[in-house]
Amino acid sequence: MQIEKLVVIKIGGNIVDDKNALSDFLSTFATLAKSREDTALILVHGGGKIATKIGNQLGIESKYVDGRRITDDATIDLVTMVYGGLANKQIVAQLQANGCNALGLTGADANIMLANKRPVKSDANGNPLDYGWVGDVQQKGVNSEILYTLIQAGITPVLAPLTHDGKGHILNTNADTIAQETAKALSEKFEVHLIYSFEKPGVLLDAEDDSTVIDILQPAYYASLKAEQKIFAGMIPKLDNAFAALNNGVAKVIIGKAEKLPLLLSGESGTSIIL
Amino acid sequence: MQIEKLVVIKIGGNIVDDKNALSDFLSTFATLAKSREDTALILVHGGGKIATKIGNQLGIESKYVDGRRITDDATIDLVTMVYGGLANKQIVAQLQANGCNALGLTGADANIMLANKRPVKSDANGNPLDYGWVGDVQQKGVNSEILYTLIQAGITPVLAPLTHDGKGHILNTNADTIAQETAKALSEKFEVHLIYSFEKPGVLLDAEDDSTVIDILQPAYYASLKAEQKIFAGMIPKLDNAFAALNNGVAKVIIGKAEKLPLLLSGESGTSIIL
Repeated sequence: MQIEKLVVIKIGGNIVDDKNALSDFLSTFATLAKSREDTALILVHGGGKIATKIGNQLGIESKYVDGRRITDDATIDLVTMVYGGLANKQIVAQLQANGCNALGLTGADANIMLANKRPVKSDANGNPLDYGWVGDVQQKGVNSEILYTLIQAGITPVLAPLTHDGKGHILNTNADTIAQETAKALSEKFEVHLIYSFEKPGVLLDAEDDSTVIDILQPAYYASLKAEQKIFAGMIPKLDNAFAALNNGVAKVIIGKAEKLPLLLSGESGTSIIL
Repeated sequence: MQIEKLVVIKIGGNIVDDKNALSDFLSTFATLAKSREDTALILVHGGGKIATKIGNQLGIESKYVDGRRITDDATIDLVTMVYGGLANKQIVAQLQANGCNALGLTGADANIMLANKRPVKSDANGNPLDYGWVGDVQQKGVNSEILYTLIQAGITPVLAPLTHDGKGHILNTNADTIAQETAKALSEKFEVHLIYSFEKPGVLLDAEDDSTVIDILQPAYYASLKAEQKIFAGMIPKLDNAFAALNNGVAKVIIGKAEKLPLLLSGESGTSIIL
């Protein structure tokens, strides 16, 4: 059957870190991957705390500025090992064991995602701020042709949060961004849904109350919630990204709990973000 | 142009460990990959001492029996990180920088190489000998269809020395074996040459004298050299494997120095092993 739909699913580091939760998730994911012949899946995974733990053992200090990891020479080697090797291949092997024909990729593999090393900027005090080996995905940086070829060959791509600069360097790139750029680029070829899974059941009206999930979020409602300051601060960049994806061809963005994956796909759980 | 020929090239850990030698090799490899439209290349890389070094820093003891690494739980995670992540992705990123469309793979990715965990055996004293998470490639364990699809899409596969058991576990597998099994399986689809590069200029008549390279080795000559005990002990399994590959469809096996790669391909350096 012709594949017409694609769902890009991002899981956070909290699931990658929890062996049992990850195993349950991958079993469900594989079942979904096999169930609908007209729909393909792509999995994007975050890194998790295992990189910090292994880094500590190796004497690699984790440095952060404004909550963002500074990726120095030792750290890019660390995350290349842990995200591109350990996490990615364990996920691939488990999906294979569940009958899903997964293939793990970084942005360097088959040149699927080209990024620019983030330029050194000035911080609020005028001091240089260098994020190190961090990549911002280039305009038209996603090689959707080879992803399309793999999908048509029955492959389920599993993307690590790593890109490359085309000059021989791996770059550290946020998994939300990898998911969004992949979804946008492939929306030329498929009807694409983008699922961000995280620890909450969706976008909440009251950040303290998990029963206040907003079912459907459209631009006007989002604007009014922002004006009333009802949207949790950390959620704003996620939602801005979601609307950016919708404005670039993605049909629907869903935010919710990874444990509810089948219900997120069917629209029965989480927050559906649409134009 | 139709791709009719395939060269599977194995490089050892000594090159993977040496940044300058690796960089030179990959530049040459990329030039060769781009030069002949009727010939595809596959690169198979060993692990190198970096795994041992990082393992030492992580407090993972390297254990060997008869020169073979015992792959316990901590060690399989280590080699999955280092072989499948760090080494593989650095090679891929550098090949991409040289214009070669490389894609890194373990045996788990797209199920390209299924192996059986090596059974526990008895050692010479009757004690149990457990190699741990070591894989022996299954009969018909190579998924040549997806490798064929990738090659036809212009991709150069880069294989790490890791397989999987189809039950969710990554397995540690000798890079020579990965190269041989890949070459054998793809000989149904291409005329395949298999190059083993190592630190010597070829198979030597006198192991102490690098000027005594045997240009062409055929079965009768090999048998006579073995009878005269002129073949260096460690070379015998390598050559037995080479003849096994030839008996399973591979057209030619070449053994020589990685630094001479273009001359190994053209038959002007190294030892050519043929039937």
